[in-house]
Amino acid sequence: MIQKITLIGAGNLATCLGKSLKKNGFDILQVYSHTEESAKTLAEKLNTKYTYNTKDIDLSADLIIISIKDDAIGEMIDKIKHKNLKIVHTSGSVSMQILKTHSYCYGVFYPIMTLSKNRDIDFSDIPICLEANSDDFLSELKEMAERISSQVFEIHSKERKILHMAAVFANNFVNHFYDISENILKENGLSFDLLKPLIKETASKIMELSPHDAQTGPARRFDKSIINRHLKLLENNPKREKIYRFVTDSIISSYKENK
Amino acid sequence: MIQKITLIGAGNLATCLGKSLKKNGFDILQVYSHTEESAKTLAEKLNTKYTYNTKDIDLSADLIIISIKDDAIGEMIDKIKHKNLKIVHTSGSVSMQILKTHSYCYGVFYPIMTLSKNRDIDFSDIPICLEANSDDFLSELKEMAERISSQVFEIHSKERKILHMAAVFANNFVNHFYDISENILKENGLSFDLLKPLIKETASKIMELSPHDAQTGPARRFDKSIINRHLKLLENNPKREKIYRFVTDSIISSYKENK
Repeated sequence: MIQKITLIGAGNLATCLGKSLKKNGFDILQVYSHTEESAKTLAEKLNTKYTYNTKDIDLSADLIIISIKDDAIGEMIDKIKHKNLKIVHTSGSVSMQILKTHSYCYGVFYPIMTLSKNRDIDFSDIPICLEANSDDFLSELKEMAERISSQVFEIHSKERKILHMAAVFANNFVNHFYDISENILKENGLSFDLLKPLIKETASKIMELSPHDAQTGPARRFDKSIINRHLKLLENNPKREKIYRFVTDSIISSYKENK
Repeated sequence: MIQKITLIGAGNLATCLGKSLKKNGFDILQVYSHTEESAKTLAEKLNTKYTYNTKDIDLSADLIIISIKDDAIGEMIDKIKHKNLKIVHTSGSVSMQILKTHSYCYGVFYPIMTLSKNRDIDFSDIPICLEANSDDFLSELKEMAERISSQVFEIHSKERKILHMAAVFANNFVNHFYDISENILKENGLSFDLLKPLIKETASKIMELSPHDAQTGPARRFDKSIINRHLKLLENNPKREKIYRFVTDSIISSYKENK
């Protein structure tokens, strides 16, 4: 059974996951980060020890969770050359096989969520995608994951990468459009609060309707006169004008194709 | 006091607004639509009369609400040449002045929301933007709007058009990205349900954090290796690849500019 955990990383995901693990009764033995400041900050939140020296990472844990930038995972693995580790990474896009060389049990623990250090989040409904190099280790991970979430799935590397990419559209790109709309309002002395009920409803709507059926607006209605008026309003900002034109064309063609 | 209403239009907005008005005790005298079927459908929902002949539109109402395609408003106004009407349209993008020629009281009643016929919605928190050609008529409209929503604002045509354009980003474009992500998952045999908690949280997050601070993901982290892997996954769909590249560049530049 997994009880003692060493957390490698102190970013958004490591912070939120660490808090959730602690809340659900796991022992966080230690936090590692390559900067002392961030290691210390997270260790204080989790009331545990920390290090910023890879040589001092506590490998006695039941599970090592690597939750760092994708590009840094390979290098980190090279630094903790201990053969008898149980180890997972939390990345949506990195293959499980990157962990193969140095561990007898390795896997992936990928929560499909947007996580920020400064926002507490309840993990209980977050889908967690697990992958492991053996059935036994998968069972151990499953038991552990189910202590923090009711939505635990076995998802292999190929599907996980697809999921991660789709999540970029559904979260990162969506949030960027919130950002653009806030900027448009700010520049015109209008409050972003005016759009918040709309944003809430846009997300709620697709819990019941498929997004394709939920679509409204000028592009959906092929209403060229409004589209042209919007493009005119965006004239002074060529980047925004281009993005408006681009997404509008994408919406129009997605309905024309399906006619 | 506005009590009796004639509703011109039977689309998404007219349907949801009509239901909300009826629920809040207004009398819907009649529904007009240019097709008999849609006029009848909405009239049945509102338990009232209908017509699909502009000559038979009931102009005895305290207020005529025109809720039709933007392009059709001008033509509709030409058809109801009665001088003593109180009349509003519900469009985000059309100037109030389009109603000037034929009415002594005219204005705009624009709810900032995405509305679909097949989804009931509570109007009580929907921001309603009002504009009127006189203070008296504005007061009448305000009193009426406040019977269905607690969020009533006076917003002039210029600001309303900006709001509508920002809403296209925050709703239409956002929903299109939900649509793309559902399609990506479907094509790979994965359930869209896996992304729903993420979508909910993405919208909830910006009720507290500004979208700019809420942003996460590979573009935000300037993580080129993931971005390139995603582009590779999208190779077989040049449109999606282009849109991924485009929005990613927009995110990256929005953070580089602010550095």
